[in-house]
Amino acid sequence: MRISELSARTGVSVATIKYYLREGLLPEGRRSAPTQAIYDDIHVSRLRVIRALIESGVSIAETRRVLDTLDRPPARPHDLLGAAHGAITPSVEGDADVSAAERLVEALGWQPGRCDPHVLGAVARALESLERADFRVPDDTMAVYLDAIRRIARAEIAGVPADPAEAVRYVVLGSVLVEPLLLALRRVAEQVASAERFEGSAGTAPAP
Amino acid sequence: MRISELSARTGVSVATIKYYLREGLLPEGRRSAPTQAIYDDIHVSRLRVIRALIESGVSIAETRRVLDTLDRPPARPHDLLGAAHGAITPSVEGDADVSAAERLVEALGWQPGRCDPHVLGAVARALESLERADFRVPDDTMAVYLDAIRRIARAEIAGVPADPAEAVRYVVLGSVLVEPLLLALRRVAEQVASAERFEGSAGTAPAP
Repeated sequence: MRISELSARTGVSVATIKYYLREGLLPEGRRSAPTQAIYDDIHVSRLRVIRALIESGVSIAETRRVLDTLDRPPARPHDLLGAAHGAITPSVEGDADVSAAERLVEALGWQPGRCDPHVLGAVARALESLERADFRVPDDTMAVYLDAIRRIARAEIAGVPADPAEAVRYVVLGSVLVEPLLLALRRVAEQVASAERFEGSAGTAPAP
Repeated sequence: MRISELSARTGVSVATIKYYLREGLLPEGRRSAPTQAIYDDIHVSRLRVIRALIESGVSIAETRRVLDTLDRPPARPHDLLGAAHGAITPSVEGDADVSAAERLVEALGWQPGRCDPHVLGAVARALESLERADFRVPDDTMAVYLDAIRRIARAEIAGVPADPAEAVRYVVLGSVLVEPLLLALRRVAEQVASAERFEGSAGTAPAP
């Protein structure tokens, strides 16, 4: 198909497609004339992934790293996750104090030394932001966070497909694209819990 | 204190403080001379909040809305949450299909009509991103998400302080600043679960 049809099928403008081609996010089409190229279904599906990542707030540079991981997956399933996290977790700047982060990592059942340093740094930076704003998560709330997050992660990893190509896609896209969904659902659930506590009512009967 | 001491106490550069003053994020100090102003502890604590918000990825415009909510809190505790969510949830552009989002909202025990439209729009956009990338969350994983998110929200709302001024701060900052922590903890927990499934081991014994 020509670039105009690729645009019509994906809803991405021709100008944006040309930008992705220049940035190397989208592979070149097959030249059919000096000023014309032919695209196929691989370009359609790749464009959908690019658009979903960028609309989820992933930067162009991170999108490129995610696509590289999709194209050149590591051999062992467990390494996939590290590659996916490495692609989307910015590296630490400066010396974050990781001791509080290490305690949380241990509470999740993990040796801090086995935790990806980028991810450990992300926990440390999140804790620092809270501390700077003088915001303390109460201990019992933190215990609920750790338990709930562990349930989420176990269900996600149990769902990773056995087929390696599918597994890469699932892990990389699941890590990135599910984040906005979880955050939005948290806001809905906070409104429900707030109505239950402060208004003495919820929208419908709470689930059993 | 002078601006140089305010800078030293908060770790925010003088140039950045002047930028926040111009943007109206930080109230003016008390003039002590034509080119000099005196700042106090209110400026220190406000600067820490601004820095934590901006470092968590909140934009200048959203930071201004969050600060407005802190300064002019709504009267009823339940309305606080709506104001906090309104400040940090971008409004929907275009016509998102909200029917799938409404089903999730109902599964969380909420009537879609009572859900803040910005938040409902955020759920709809997150689902659209997943669909565009052809990524389907398995039903049993989604059930775990809903259950875990409900536990998180109930614990958070149960922890909202009774004192109104403290409640505003807790709700507004908790909504925004805890997000990066939850996302980082999810990545840690995914690494643990992946080691358990694919490597047959975890870092330490899993919690009972």
